[in-house]
Amino acid sequence: MKTYQAVTEAVLQELREITGAAHVKTAPHILQSYSEDESGMLAHRQAEVVVFPGTAEEISRIMKLANRRRIPVTPRGAGTGVCGGVVPVYGGIVVSMERLNRILEVRENGLYLVAEAGVRTADIQAAARAKGLLYAGDPCSSDSCFIGGNLATNAGGNKAVRYGTTRQQVYAVEAVLPTGEITQFGSVLKKCSTGFCLEQLLIGSEGILGIITKVILKLVPLPPYRFDGLIIFSSLEQAVSLVPKLMQSAVNPTSVEFMDKKFVRRAVQYCRVPLPHWQDAYYVIVTLEAFCSEELARMTETLVALGETCGAVDMVKADERVWKVRRNCLESTRELSRESTSEDLVVPLLQIGNCLHTLMKKAATYSFEAFCLAHAGDGNLHFQLLRGDLPAAVWQAEVADFRKFAYPFVYRSGGRLSGEHGIGCKRVAYMEAYTDPVELAVMKKIKNALDPHGILNPGKVLREE
Amino acid sequence: MKTYQAVTEAVLQELREITGAAHVKTAPHILQSYSEDESGMLAHRQAEVVVFPGTAEEISRIMKLANRRRIPVTPRGAGTGVCGGVVPVYGGIVVSMERLNRILEVRENGLYLVAEAGVRTADIQAAARAKGLLYAGDPCSSDSCFIGGNLATNAGGNKAVRYGTTRQQVYAVEAVLPTGEITQFGSVLKKCSTGFCLEQLLIGSEGILGIITKVILKLVPLPPYRFDGLIIFSSLEQAVSLVPKLMQSAVNPTSVEFMDKKFVRRAVQYCRVPLPHWQDAYYVIVTLEAFCSEELARMTETLVALGETCGAVDMVKADERVWKVRRNCLESTRELSRESTSEDLVVPLLQIGNCLHTLMKKAATYSFEAFCLAHAGDGNLHFQLLRGDLPAAVWQAEVADFRKFAYPFVYRSGGRLSGEHGIGCKRVAYMEAYTDPVELAVMKKIKNALDPHGILNPGKVLREE
Repeated sequence: MKTYQAVTEAVLQELREITGAAHVKTAPHILQSYSEDESGMLAHRQAEVVVFPGTAEEISRIMKLANRRRIPVTPRGAGTGVCGGVVPVYGGIVVSMERLNRILEVRENGLYLVAEAGVRTADIQAAARAKGLLYAGDPCSSDSCFIGGNLATNAGGNKAVRYGTTRQQVYAVEAVLPTGEITQFGSVLKKCSTGFCLEQLLIGSEGILGIITKVILKLVPLPPYRFDGLIIFSSLEQAVSLVPKLMQSAVNPTSVEFMDKKFVRRAVQYCRVPLPHWQDAYYVIVTLEAFCSEELARMTETLVALGETCGAVDMVKADERVWKVRRNCLESTRELSRESTSEDLVVPLLQIGNCLHTLMKKAATYSFEAFCLAHAGDGNLHFQLLRGDLPAAVWQAEVADFRKFAYPFVYRSGGRLSGEHGIGCKRVAYMEAYTDPVELAVMKKIKNALDPHGILNPGKVLREE
Repeated sequence: MKTYQAVTEAVLQELREITGAAHVKTAPHILQSYSEDESGMLAHRQAEVVVFPGTAEEISRIMKLANRRRIPVTPRGAGTGVCGGVVPVYGGIVVSMERLNRILEVRENGLYLVAEAGVRTADIQAAARAKGLLYAGDPCSSDSCFIGGNLATNAGGNKAVRYGTTRQQVYAVEAVLPTGEITQFGSVLKKCSTGFCLEQLLIGSEGILGIITKVILKLVPLPPYRFDGLIIFSSLEQAVSLVPKLMQSAVNPTSVEFMDKKFVRRAVQYCRVPLPHWQDAYYVIVTLEAFCSEELARMTETLVALGETCGAVDMVKADERVWKVRRNCLESTRELSRESTSEDLVVPLLQIGNCLHTLMKKAATYSFEAFCLAHAGDGNLHFQLLRGDLPAAVWQAEVADFRKFAYPFVYRSGGRLSGEHGIGCKRVAYMEAYTDPVELAVMKKIKNALDPHGILNPGKVLREE
């Protein structure tokens, strides 16, 4: 374990010289609100100071100061994460990216966009759309999350089946390294065989290898034709059998969402929009997009034929009511239980059926309530476990027991702990327990090589040695 | 600089114990032929022994032996590289992957294929096609190159515009690390936010971070409709103006190839297939593919309209004759000059015009002959410089002078030294000179962290410290 120093008045003074006094904050309510994330996960310790730098150069100076004085630094985007990735577990300096909030360039003819890390994802999507183009990254929190955080966690989202996760949307990343240097990894290139692909190493590293300050993102043509279908099944096996068939069938779906019976029932009740068979059915919602109407028609016909093959009991066009139900799944369970926890497991497409079946059956053996929805097209299974009225000790023991079963099972199936949320501080112990030891050792060697004092976002992803 | 030890009889004996005596070779003609690559680049030193292991476990034992005895190890695929990536510049052990040549699994319903690193790329393509699927990696050398080498160099190829380079085709990589451990990076997952993306770090690292032993590759549905068009221009500006327009236009071309006037003339003469305007024209060859005929028709109409907008003098369907001319470009210049050198520059799409114009103009000021073809859809510019009858000193001085102009110019344009061939030992000095020093230092820190004795493929990509 590294030893860290406290933020003294001398440190605060240095920080004020770097960013200007107005951008260095120590008021208790600010320290508190910048010490937790969207999940409400609290730090064991709080931030000692929150700094709001305006440039990469200022962040560079902060990192050099932190290295000299051995103070932990926690970079923070919009704080919409749910795994404690921005929680300052060792106190120290929180660096908020809020002031790096400019879209610097939208090059429609070059199909790229340059933005600072603190720009809201929705603003990037809007800037692309204003030029008739698509930025394909689309996390559910796009209205509030920052693009830098999307890269840090390799966020998934609504279009990941067709377009890939955030890492597939990135040409280049400017970052401040743990030791304070500013550099850019990558360039606006469609191919490159010139040394290591460091931009992909940085993306998904959850802020422990560098603070992302600027991004160059890919833009793509916006498909003008779209069809949303709701495919309804009475059995889990039939519902999940649709997924690999769909992926093989050359319809290249933009989105394939799965909801279990409990989520369908609960979310429909919550939204008060009765949908077909809502009392007792599994839903698969599929979005198809195309550049010509005949192509969309072909894709839609294929989808319908596959739905029939797989034994769908009903198929309807999915209108806004269906998406409303889907979007409100998590919200709909909130009034059932003040406390809950969510899993973000990811498995190979061929394993979805087996994993859903096994894990839902296992979950049913506990006293907590378990709901399941899946970004099925990319194998990402979200289990929502609700505490309800359970005593704390029972709740904790049962969740621990479920995980003890679920995680090794998922790893044996070729899966991983997190499909899109990340490890943060929430899953460090599990990361340590289930990652191949050789792979884990490589990650730690890289972390130590780039951050010898272990000051950048410590306590996240990897356990310090 | 690291110090290496010689391969002694005791080392040979250990190697024989690992792989069996039949797979340890020291005959002079074998040492020689395993010490050069396709470019004929010779090592300053030759291999001292060539080993043909049959499993990852054997390679692991070889690496542990090499670490203990401080002997350099050079992994080798089919030797089709052109930058000396497999040339054993410090002698030592060459590890040939030829015996790891099995396709282990083709999962059509899971859309993936598992193969050992020494499988020919063409065999992987054929195995996918036999199931009605496409493996989209398609380097020009696919008939002879190995898939492991494709990953090591992040090979480009004929379909990279639509499908991306080799790194986009990979789910997971099994490798033997420099220190001898065997591990797998990645899994058959469409998304993942569980620690660093180490598979992408390994891909394109040219065998200096690990020896790739097994790969899990993505397969995709095979588009049944295809159109090839030859778009003919009288001016360079018009020809290259087509490229960004095409990429914006939602036709998602599979391939966009550019040939300058000299290559058109020379390759047509060589192949004896007179094509329209061959005496004095720039060619752009475009491949479009689709899953329905109406979609292909829409794409073709868009292509024709863009060709007109850009001032094409003629447009014809590109049949096999056109592709024959394109394929024979390099071959056609071989009888003009026994010695030549090629550049593999890559630039942003918007810079292609400016870079081609500037570099072709600069090249024309020298006594060597310069030909240019480009994988224009991905910004990859190949210049072929021919020595002809020039005295060696003039030739070398002129090539050096051209590079001294071209490389900084390309880097200022956001480009890089290599789009698809790699750095190998050919471009190490340039890599050192033109890479951002911070980025270069990060690469070296990672290399040193994973290969503390510097024994895996030394002298490639990075200069040893």
